[in-house]
Amino acid sequence: MPTYSDVCAAARQIGDRAVLTPVLESPLLNEKLGGRLLVKAECLQRAGAFKFRGAYNRISRLSADELKAGVVAFSSGNHAQGVALAAQMLGTPAVIVMPKDAPAMKIDNTRAYGAEIVLYDRASENREEIGKHLAVERGAILVPSYDDPHIIAGQGTVGLELAAQVKDIGAQMDAVIAPCGGGGLISGMALALSQDCPGVEIYAAEPQGFDDTARSLAAGERCSIEPGAQSFCDALLLPTPGELTFSINRVLLKGGLVVSDLDAARAMAAAFRYLKIVVEPGGAVALAAVLSGAFDARGKTVAVVCSGGNVDGDVFAQALSNGDGLA
Amino acid sequence: MPTYSDVCAAARQIGDRAVLTPVLESPLLNEKLGGRLLVKAECLQRAGAFKFRGAYNRISRLSADELKAGVVAFSSGNHAQGVALAAQMLGTPAVIVMPKDAPAMKIDNTRAYGAEIVLYDRASENREEIGKHLAVERGAILVPSYDDPHIIAGQGTVGLELAAQVKDIGAQMDAVIAPCGGGGLISGMALALSQDCPGVEIYAAEPQGFDDTARSLAAGERCSIEPGAQSFCDALLLPTPGELTFSINRVLLKGGLVVSDLDAARAMAAAFRYLKIVVEPGGAVALAAVLSGAFDARGKTVAVVCSGGNVDGDVFAQALSNGDGLA
Repeated sequence: MPTYSDVCAAARQIGDRAVLTPVLESPLLNEKLGGRLLVKAECLQRAGAFKFRGAYNRISRLSADELKAGVVAFSSGNHAQGVALAAQMLGTPAVIVMPKDAPAMKIDNTRAYGAEIVLYDRASENREEIGKHLAVERGAILVPSYDDPHIIAGQGTVGLELAAQVKDIGAQMDAVIAPCGGGGLISGMALALSQDCPGVEIYAAEPQGFDDTARSLAAGERCSIEPGAQSFCDALLLPTPGELTFSINRVLLKGGLVVSDLDAARAMAAAFRYLKIVVEPGGAVALAAVLSGAFDARGKTVAVVCSGGNVDGDVFAQALSNGDGLA
Repeated sequence: MPTYSDVCAAARQIGDRAVLTPVLESPLLNEKLGGRLLVKAECLQRAGAFKFRGAYNRISRLSADELKAGVVAFSSGNHAQGVALAAQMLGTPAVIVMPKDAPAMKIDNTRAYGAEIVLYDRASENREEIGKHLAVERGAILVPSYDDPHIIAGQGTVGLELAAQVKDIGAQMDAVIAPCGGGGLISGMALALSQDCPGVEIYAAEPQGFDDTARSLAAGERCSIEPGAQSFCDALLLPTPGELTFSINRVLLKGGLVVSDLDAARAMAAAFRYLKIVVEPGGAVALAAVLSGAFDARGKTVAVVCSGGNVDGDVFAQALSNGDGLA
């Protein structure tokens, strides 16, 4: 199981290859909330999402022989781009297994980073099997999207940075919320924050219907969602928490927060209006948890991660048309 | 006339009240351009544009008596918000004269920062006269939007930061381009950059029809545009360069670059897609100058300022629908 020192080692390993993303704040949003909201803008990360951190931390540790053989990953799009870019920077070939219905931008950008794309059908095919088969066939290394110590430690560097940045501005966080699919980001951040900000409450945010981590935290064991759920938060459509990630989250997280697709769309509109950043649906769920009131920020200082910004223009325009729902 | 040391003094005066905005970069954009493009994201500045810098530098130097009497400004929207926020932070009342057809977001946010708004008709009324009249009537101080030494020095801190940030990443700039309305931003930046990056070429970017600075630089004296021009770059609709700003620009600028509204819209779409930032039409013209080829970036390192992000959702959605025009 990864520890705080693995997160620190990941920060050294990644160095300045990742962007030190800013912590943004809007006086108008703070006034509306009656609290202080700090937004860690990981949508400004290389390849448009935090995923580059874990991917670089994992791939840069491969041996020369392994790098020669290449890497394989399966992903709905952000891990895909993170792996493709890290692989390109490290000079290793990458094959990425992506769902046919992934956002066009995610598929196009992954290809543009030089990766070979293998598309599959979400309904009838199993991406893990395709990925494993490709890895065996090519002698390549499978880079998991969350359930891996180096991936978790890499994503945890978001937490290290956040703790340092918040300290720099003289603030103290009561709570931190990050989007949660498989749980790599929030578990890595929890490793960092439980050490650097003792006592801070840490929450996973999920879309309605895919609240497996919230349910699992409440139950004390890994639970799956009901099948058949749908959400436009394409980055977070996972049915069950990761084994490794949940073993960390069940100890370090305060709980899970659940938001609707409309809440997420309104958070995208608020990020557009007040913060001037582009956030994708799944990347906006932690912000949505605060703006919708699922987390009550009154009188508190709360930090949220906007974890990705890879969204097609038509989906973004549609989200803006709902308004931000803030009086 | 302000000098390099005034810009340094402005940086000290503003301190951490302004956001140290990040310099962003996209490997995919670099590949398409065959050069290196660095983007100073001033849309992430407080109140969504660089204007806060100059406003804070100016207003924070007022005496206690002057602060009590308050400030007046006229502006199409970004200076309005910058003055309103700086005034709010410094506890002084602000009255802002804005055109009736300014973007709704700019009017709403200016009001939300606590300013009193006076609307005027762009076609039939003179904003300078209204502003001066209000200042006299209330004994308040007029905060000019560009032709003022403290305003220019404040905006120049964008250049100081950019020079330091680019040095930090080990890069060397061949050229710097910033949007130009009255010329406060580019003249202030030129004061900073001509000292900190000797030899760098500095350009003003303007929308077609409002290329008064480009014409004036070519002619060696202040020229006005032909009347009747239109552009959706609402922040840059000024007919003539400022006296003070042009006296700096004519010495320190290499020239002017002119882009169409479609170029600006496509640059907004590219910023959305590759950089995940929200840029308003006028804020995108420097980026547009590079992406459209008006400035040829092949084999060069060029920095552009995306100077503001205060754009209404429907205008932004419309801009995205054009695509980014990049193959």
